[in-house]
Amino acid sequence: MLFNEKMYELGSKRSVIRDLFEYGKEQSKIVGAENVFDFSIGNPTVEAPEIVNKTIVELTYKKSSMELHGYTSAQGDEETRQAIAMYLNKKYDTNFKSDNFYMTVGAAASLTICFNALTSSKEDEFIAIAPFFPEYKVFVEGAGAKLEVVSADEVNFQINFDELEKKINKNTKGIIINSPNNPSGAVYTKETIQKLSDLLMKKSNEFDTEIFIISDEPYREIVYDGVEVPYVTKYYKNTIVCYSYSKSLSLPGERIGYILVPDEVVESKKIYAAICGAGRSLGFVCAPSMFQKVLVKCVGKTGDIEIYKKNRDLLYQGLMELGYKCYKPQGAFYLFVKILGDDEEEFCKRAKELNLLVVGATGFGCPGWVRISYCVDEYMINRSFGAFKKLKESFE
Amino acid sequence: MLFNEKMYELGSKRSVIRDLFEYGKEQSKIVGAENVFDFSIGNPTVEAPEIVNKTIVELTYKKSSMELHGYTSAQGDEETRQAIAMYLNKKYDTNFKSDNFYMTVGAAASLTICFNALTSSKEDEFIAIAPFFPEYKVFVEGAGAKLEVVSADEVNFQINFDELEKKINKNTKGIIINSPNNPSGAVYTKETIQKLSDLLMKKSNEFDTEIFIISDEPYREIVYDGVEVPYVTKYYKNTIVCYSYSKSLSLPGERIGYILVPDEVVESKKIYAAICGAGRSLGFVCAPSMFQKVLVKCVGKTGDIEIYKKNRDLLYQGLMELGYKCYKPQGAFYLFVKILGDDEEEFCKRAKELNLLVVGATGFGCPGWVRISYCVDEYMINRSFGAFKKLKESFE
Repeated sequence: MLFNEKMYELGSKRSVIRDLFEYGKEQSKIVGAENVFDFSIGNPTVEAPEIVNKTIVELTYKKSSMELHGYTSAQGDEETRQAIAMYLNKKYDTNFKSDNFYMTVGAAASLTICFNALTSSKEDEFIAIAPFFPEYKVFVEGAGAKLEVVSADEVNFQINFDELEKKINKNTKGIIINSPNNPSGAVYTKETIQKLSDLLMKKSNEFDTEIFIISDEPYREIVYDGVEVPYVTKYYKNTIVCYSYSKSLSLPGERIGYILVPDEVVESKKIYAAICGAGRSLGFVCAPSMFQKVLVKCVGKTGDIEIYKKNRDLLYQGLMELGYKCYKPQGAFYLFVKILGDDEEEFCKRAKELNLLVVGATGFGCPGWVRISYCVDEYMINRSFGAFKKLKESFE
Repeated sequence: MLFNEKMYELGSKRSVIRDLFEYGKEQSKIVGAENVFDFSIGNPTVEAPEIVNKTIVELTYKKSSMELHGYTSAQGDEETRQAIAMYLNKKYDTNFKSDNFYMTVGAAASLTICFNALTSSKEDEFIAIAPFFPEYKVFVEGAGAKLEVVSADEVNFQINFDELEKKINKNTKGIIINSPNNPSGAVYTKETIQKLSDLLMKKSNEFDTEIFIISDEPYREIVYDGVEVPYVTKYYKNTIVCYSYSKSLSLPGERIGYILVPDEVVESKKIYAAICGAGRSLGFVCAPSMFQKVLVKCVGKTGDIEIYKKNRDLLYQGLMELGYKCYKPQGAFYLFVKILGDDEEEFCKRAKELNLLVVGATGFGCPGWVRISYCVDEYMINRSFGAFKKLKESFE
């Protein structure tokens, strides 16, 4: 075969989200941008905190090319990793050291590196909890393992533990969790995390295996109403954290994040080494050097989360008043809405005819819902209610 | 197994080069930095051209967060790809369009994405021409293919065609070439590229297969004395170019480069799609967005190459005068020197005792030589000659 067919398929099928986004741009030319309500994409709209740009300019003037743009070690700059460790230790009363961190080229890289480091057999399984980010499947299969899915708890969007317990077996390598969650906006409670920890301890003992939690948490700081996001490593020893600054610092295009392997993880030094090896094998030489240095000054900062909160409140209240059933998001910047009727495709099609671009949640493993991304302009939300009203009426 | 053993091995064995570099730092504390001559690493020492930093500052002031730091499309920013196409078309009289380019997170990413896109069976083979960058083996094997090596032409450091012809078989997927070459500093002549093209056409016909050239060329602009680096796509249709701005713009830590798939490549649209898919599967979401935008203004610029040339001349002449046998590099920033005696390890050990840190070339597939990286301070070169003299005397 001339090329890898699986890669060809992955590269030639555009995602539903990307398709909608492109449709929106085309449709804007026809009906006018003010009449298209594109809720498809999760591209942060809040400005990066001022200190990000200030630090970029300062570093550019002060540092030599080699200092600013030279290779860092593969693990990442010592000073950066130190700053992250100190921030987390202070905030979560943990005890991390710089050597627990491996800097990455963003969340996707954190995940692919983890899956490649941990997968040792094609029987290995990772379990995602619906609703989940669809690329997990691509990343897990790319590493040569299998993805199993636990269906959604459609009431509280916590974890369907009965089903999870049944799905865990001797081949289970890890459970992928994502809280605050894309697409539901749910935050896992302490009770959920504790229960997950207890279950995994029980199952590890039962099968005499080690089961990892892969905690994918780019939305950790994007939460509302003072909701607490439990720090997972404090509840379960075999937790590996995958983080990205894409959302908190509004830097999605810059590709900067990290993997955290706490000392408590079984064989943590070896797992860390396997992560370094996977990073090397996949072609990640180091995380972007300038943004590593920017982080030293910006760890723990965020853009203005109030803007997202305002959007959330506006959209949630507006749609509830119109009679939609919505899950009230505690974090991230997505509103999860139950479809009207019983045909998700039909609902999305009618929405699209009204130039309301929302993403059907079958791709997230949770059919019968749609994801509405509210990292958009507040005025677009206000203008969109007329269309949402018509959509509702069309199902009455 | 708890983790992937191959990844663990890759991550726990430090490369010889990195080992020497760390040793140099330790030794500096003992004998003083001025007495350690570290020629181990290829980290550009020339400042990035002024327009790079100027553009960074300008963009930071002028663009919104979303424009500057937002996701770009997976292929890369249209404007950036357009700028690169126009530059190459003007310089090499080619006819590329923006859609022939896929922006990457540097040269290593360009290579891993290519190998993953092309490899469709574990029988697939890529051939490297010694001396070659040792990570090729890691990247090719990571993609599930095999790396075969053609031994070096130790006279002109062109291609040992007799051996190459014997190594090509029905499983040969591609030949990896790297000109200007790391570690020899050789530039392949027009005649070499033409002969390679002729051979691959002949062999493609013989086996009824398609054989690709993967042209890894981060040093394309780092050449001396007006030497011409032939543009490989003009000689052979199935050429895929892997490029990085690490060396030309002195931005190795920023991880920015591209893959070029010309229209002439067989099934070029499908190969391009497979490249998009491989990038997705490996976890590269997009190339760093700000540096993509910096490129629009900086394509075709370089740091001050004269500094490298001065170093090359100083080191080459100095070592020739001392009686070393050196290959005179026409490009890149490495000097390839024949060992004294017949034991590479012994030669490197004696050099190390004199605090001369040079890299034995067995790892590059070319035993009996050492690589001396001259992207260093000119004064260090001058101070090092005493030690090189003692090293020579120790073999007399």
